[in-house]
Amino acid sequence: MQQQVSVITLGVSDLERSRRFYVEGFGWMPVFQNDEIVFYQMNGFVLGTWLAACLATDMQREGLARPGAFALAHNVQGREAVQPLLERLSNHGGRILKAATEPPHGGLSGYVADPDDHAWEIAWNPAWAISPEGLVTFGL
Amino acid sequence: MQQQVSVITLGVSDLERSRRFYVEGFGWMPVFQNDEIVFYQMNGFVLGTWLAACLATDMQREGLARPGAFALAHNVQGREAVQPLLERLSNHGGRILKAATEPPHGGLSGYVADPDDHAWEIAWNPAWAISPEGLVTFGL
Repeated sequence: MQQQVSVITLGVSDLERSRRFYVEGFGWMPVFQNDEIVFYQMNGFVLGTWLAACLATDMQREGLARPGAFALAHNVQGREAVQPLLERLSNHGGRILKAATEPPHGGLSGYVADPDDHAWEIAWNPAWAISPEGLVTFGL
Repeated sequence: MQQQVSVITLGVSDLERSRRFYVEGFGWMPVFQNDEIVFYQMNGFVLGTWLAACLATDMQREGLARPGAFALAHNVQGREAVQPLLERLSNHGGRILKAATEPPHGGLSGYVADPDDHAWEIAWNPAWAISPEGLVTFGL
């Protein structure tokens, strides 16, 4: 089986509020949007923000809860970029969960919640390579 | 800002139970593991399964809930691969949420929950290209 994730779909309450966080906070450009979903072309897969009620219907699943037991991470190229990005995201609808600190394995990392309480880690991890195209490779 | 996600981290209760689902169900190979986390090198980013208590401590966040308001998707190359993969995953610790059906936009899609109740969509979407390296591109 191909070792591959095609889509990450986040359930959101207010599509425009979520869009502001991703477009103005992260500076990302949607590849598609309508009145219930926004898609972003990412590094080898697609990120979708979809009205949570639509996602629940599609999954035939009720009781979707937040915050969920997961986190996404966006790694940056240098130590000095971590805290400013956390602050920029908090200025565009996010909420800082943890200011940038040094984890035991090195680097620098903090967390911010998006407007729907989905957690993003913002990290500098010098052991993990990031290609010019944004492809991230595990390293020790 | 690079349009890039570096890591998806899923909080898990039982690392070995989760590992069996991903290694024996999906057939994926870990790139690293210890007694609290397993990492998989994916298509341009890293998937981590981490003890939920460790993730909560790292985020400085309590009350992580499942099922969360999100889904991951693994797209396959053909219609005929969807339902067998759902069944294979359900035979390795997963639970089918929705059998393969045809969504309005075409293709074929079903959902399975992993042993920690994280939702995976298994889909065939002929409009979205998958490269030999597993890089997925949005299409209409």
